[in-house]
Amino acid sequence: MKKADNLDHIRHSLAHLLAAAVLKKYPKTKLGIGPVIEHGFYYDFYFANKHKSGHESPRITDTDLPEIEKMMRELIRAKLPFSGKRLAPAEAKKIFKGQPFKLELIKEFTKPTKGVKKEPLTIYITGDKNQRKSAFNPRESAFYDLCRGGHVKNTKEINPEAFKLTHIAGAYWRGSEKNQMLTRIYGLAFATKKELDKHLALEEEAKKRDHREIGKHQKLFMSHDMVGSGLPIWLPAGTVIKDEVQRFAEETEARAGYVRVSTPHIAKEELFKTSGHLPYYADSMFPPMKLDDGNYYLKAMNCPIHHLIYKSEPRSYRDLPLRLAEYGTVYRNELSGTLAGLLRVRMLSMNDAHIYCRTDQIESEFKAVIEMTLGYFKTFGLTDYWFRLSLWDPKNRKKYVNEPKNWRAAESTIHKVLKHLGVKFVEAKNEAAFYGPKVDVQFHSMGGREETMSTIQLDFTAKKRFGLSYIDKGGKSNGEVFVIHRAPLSTHERFMAFLIEHYAGAFPVWLSPVQAVVLPVGEKYAAYAKHVAGELKAQNMRVEISAANETLGKRIRDAELKKIPYILVVGEKEESTGTVNVRERHKKETATVLLAAFLKTIKNIIAERR
Amino acid sequence: MKKADNLDHIRHSLAHLLAAAVLKKYPKTKLGIGPVIEHGFYYDFYFANKHKSGHESPRITDTDLPEIEKMMRELIRAKLPFSGKRLAPAEAKKIFKGQPFKLELIKEFTKPTKGVKKEPLTIYITGDKNQRKSAFNPRESAFYDLCRGGHVKNTKEINPEAFKLTHIAGAYWRGSEKNQMLTRIYGLAFATKKELDKHLALEEEAKKRDHREIGKHQKLFMSHDMVGSGLPIWLPAGTVIKDEVQRFAEETEARAGYVRVSTPHIAKEELFKTSGHLPYYADSMFPPMKLDDGNYYLKAMNCPIHHLIYKSEPRSYRDLPLRLAEYGTVYRNELSGTLAGLLRVRMLSMNDAHIYCRTDQIESEFKAVIEMTLGYFKTFGLTDYWFRLSLWDPKNRKKYVNEPKNWRAAESTIHKVLKHLGVKFVEAKNEAAFYGPKVDVQFHSMGGREETMSTIQLDFTAKKRFGLSYIDKGGKSNGEVFVIHRAPLSTHERFMAFLIEHYAGAFPVWLSPVQAVVLPVGEKYAAYAKHVAGELKAQNMRVEISAANETLGKRIRDAELKKIPYILVVGEKEESTGTVNVRERHKKETATVLLAAFLKTIKNIIAERR
Repeated sequence: MKKADNLDHIRHSLAHLLAAAVLKKYPKTKLGIGPVIEHGFYYDFYFANKHKSGHESPRITDTDLPEIEKMMRELIRAKLPFSGKRLAPAEAKKIFKGQPFKLELIKEFTKPTKGVKKEPLTIYITGDKNQRKSAFNPRESAFYDLCRGGHVKNTKEINPEAFKLTHIAGAYWRGSEKNQMLTRIYGLAFATKKELDKHLALEEEAKKRDHREIGKHQKLFMSHDMVGSGLPIWLPAGTVIKDEVQRFAEETEARAGYVRVSTPHIAKEELFKTSGHLPYYADSMFPPMKLDDGNYYLKAMNCPIHHLIYKSEPRSYRDLPLRLAEYGTVYRNELSGTLAGLLRVRMLSMNDAHIYCRTDQIESEFKAVIEMTLGYFKTFGLTDYWFRLSLWDPKNRKKYVNEPKNWRAAESTIHKVLKHLGVKFVEAKNEAAFYGPKVDVQFHSMGGREETMSTIQLDFTAKKRFGLSYIDKGGKSNGEVFVIHRAPLSTHERFMAFLIEHYAGAFPVWLSPVQAVVLPVGEKYAAYAKHVAGELKAQNMRVEISAANETLGKRIRDAELKKIPYILVVGEKEESTGTVNVRERHKKETATVLLAAFLKTIKNIIAERR
Repeated sequence: MKKADNLDHIRHSLAHLLAAAVLKKYPKTKLGIGPVIEHGFYYDFYFANKHKSGHESPRITDTDLPEIEKMMRELIRAKLPFSGKRLAPAEAKKIFKGQPFKLELIKEFTKPTKGVKKEPLTIYITGDKNQRKSAFNPRESAFYDLCRGGHVKNTKEINPEAFKLTHIAGAYWRGSEKNQMLTRIYGLAFATKKELDKHLALEEEAKKRDHREIGKHQKLFMSHDMVGSGLPIWLPAGTVIKDEVQRFAEETEARAGYVRVSTPHIAKEELFKTSGHLPYYADSMFPPMKLDDGNYYLKAMNCPIHHLIYKSEPRSYRDLPLRLAEYGTVYRNELSGTLAGLLRVRMLSMNDAHIYCRTDQIESEFKAVIEMTLGYFKTFGLTDYWFRLSLWDPKNRKKYVNEPKNWRAAESTIHKVLKHLGVKFVEAKNEAAFYGPKVDVQFHSMGGREETMSTIQLDFTAKKRFGLSYIDKGGKSNGEVFVIHRAPLSTHERFMAFLIEHYAGAFPVWLSPVQAVVLPVGEKYAAYAKHVAGELKAQNMRVEISAANETLGKRIRDAELKKIPYILVVGEKEESTGTVNVRERHKKETATVLLAAFLKTIKNIIAERR
């Protein structure tokens, strides 16, 4: 048997043992189902527990889990066998009497369906298979469950130290909100304790880096029921980081010859019909708002209005490439239940730009975009990324715009650029966009999943949809205008979530909402602390004073928890010598330096975006 | 007779003369009405002019106006008397036979209304009052019009050189789009030719400064049918100015202790119910968008979400004042027909901030806001402004929130601040907002109208609506949180329109989309021109090169038309000496200076926002 299969059997068996233990402790419990999931298993229960008020609530909390775990370990150590058994429906109904969810399943499994031969019902017995009575008597030693199998032969195959019940959550019976709400108990399980511990450590680390947790703790952003789902509100600290990232992008783009534009967030139906977003993309768009002069939509993309800007005056071959940049905001009508933190939102501010170029400029423009991307990654200290070049399939003509010559030329050009730059990349056949080849930037999330950070797409269709052209050297109109869509810094929302997890909240100095905090050792040095803070502020540093109404130790710990890059302690010695005692983040030792020297150092660090 | 009355009589008489002249030239014309307006008069006509296609169109264009003017002058010089006459309805109907609009008016004027005694009909005759026949025979010398009077006694009172027909426009009969479209001819008229010329010169100047004209000419912004009405699209040049203004505001606010936030453009119905925008302000808001979790609205104001941020954590007396700033975007559902340029738009980006303060901080915060406003005005070179303090009326308790103690204290505080600062201000009783007193910043537009640039409002109601409070020195919750709403730089849209007209498109160096242009006198100096431009760019200046494919003279004129602050001409002498020949905007003489010296000067000018 493959190791993976056996691990699934262990997990599935643990689900049964969980149910057996719960039933032993709470005999009136009604059982739902208990499948295997990634890293473990769960089981759904209905704990009948009538309050005086008449409503029911789960009987257990997370604090009950250790005891249930203990009972499960006892069952494991009892070396119980697992055995399957076919049953007639009538017999099954008898066994699961008083278990409404199981009876519902039996009814469904045995309901005659025209033309379909029914599989026989099976149950799995944990313990003495000769036990003839219902398993739902706690005094009986065997546990019966309605199940198609996939178990260990004996609980002795399970390492009693390699599983853990983690948490409980609510879940509707069969996933429908029309049904009863059940209590789901989750468990992790591995073959060895070492594997379990490794997983727990990873989870702990991911939790510490979770952008929602850090976002809350560091007051970076918030959400509010009255504002709605998927609409993060940037608090002062988060706005500082967002604005710094934006300024970085704006400066980089200005140096690279981009010009900035600023376009409305709403536009008429006609625009999105021309772009093709309507009707093909209508489900993802917000519903229209009917005004006196037609239907208006929150924009789904920035490109259509950028195309109109391109068209607003005649362009000559000398005007190209034209690079229109904007931190443009786009809207997605996601279902409220799918929204979480900064990763699934309804309003996104995108590091967008559209490059309008001639055929002979595709190579240099693509190269420049990838180099810009590499430059960004260097600044942010990212190394674990690679590019994915998505190509068309010449045989799949329906999926792609029919410009074979352009496909061949563009794909070979982009391939050449990636080769030439010596970057890590993979090719993905038949994965291009309808309108042209694309290069995605891939990375591994903290959880180990492959994710797309950003994308660079070549577009062959905009020129036709919007009638883009330029006047060539000979004075003739040329319709071969290629559009590169690019957003190397993704959206503010996605990139911020990434940065928070990447830095685990310890942002580099240039991004830190508070770059330094001044701590006078006592009230007496408040004036000098103010002087130091003033000098830093005069250099546009973000600085705070932590006044001496707590002990120095507590104030240092507070500042460390806030992950402020520089803690500057000042007392008599510092005041008399014009120095500060610098405690750099993540460093044990402190150093006393002249204020002027500190200012110079830190100014350089910020200027270099470190 | 007062001079103003006589001017009205002159204008009214000219309207009749206009109709008489048109009728003489186009005998089949149907007459509408011809009233006096500001600076002149108009008259509405229906020119029956059937095309082969069957539809009708105006018979005349602006090019016909000089001939009509000439005919009017002849009538004036004929020294025709004006005389009124009462008429029986039957007689009036006979005279105005074939004039359907006049007949409609006669019918309406003579229709019996219960309890209302009808005034007798009057007509006014220009020319021989003994003419008994209809005026609508062009061979007749007298012109009859249905009119209540208000004319000169004789056309000799009219200066034939002091009026001018200016333009024609379409206008529905009686202003309703359900009626026939008529052709309106507009005229200006004054007592003297000098006054007319002065007015024409003013109009010419206003037209030259019209932000829509300059916006188009300098490619600052555009609009597009597919995007919709009231939604300006900022082009690269306009985005530069908008971003510079925003950066100025952000730096100024940071120095003044504001923190920035960034809030969604949409929010749920519940928020706007809490804020009171729904239902009271619903007509001005965009219609709701129904998502799976409720109705969402484009936000009408930024304050409600700022209040939620205030409430997101407990605030202590030490945390106040809290100043939350944002270039927040708000939306107004204006009718498409009322929208024009940047002054009436549907999406506005506001230089918004909300200051949350204690009672004892109102004075210093109000003072600081007014000082910030004065600082801005100094930078932008504005001098013709004043403040208007709008107060409540203690007798009008329904119109104002019932906090008499707060009203009295706040009004006296603000009055004191304005006095103390020695600024020009007026008081306006019974003009306050429902929720508190306000100070508007007023100025005269180019057209001489009084306009409000921005506003500073004190708000007594937010604390109750949103339950705002702080923990006082004694550790108790205090609900007296005052909110100051302020937007000294108005909205980007309104302020940009103002700046364009204020500077007549000649923006100061720091705001100019292109700050300098380098002109090599010939191809030979292209490399040196590039070097110069590179040096300027390295200092973050916005610079262009005007290549030598046109004559130097033409290129200089082009750059002057674009109102670029510095034109740098470079040739052999400049290249060999490392200099540039500087032509400063609006200056005749040029100067040759070392490139390094020029860089230093201009860098200072930009740093000082000049």
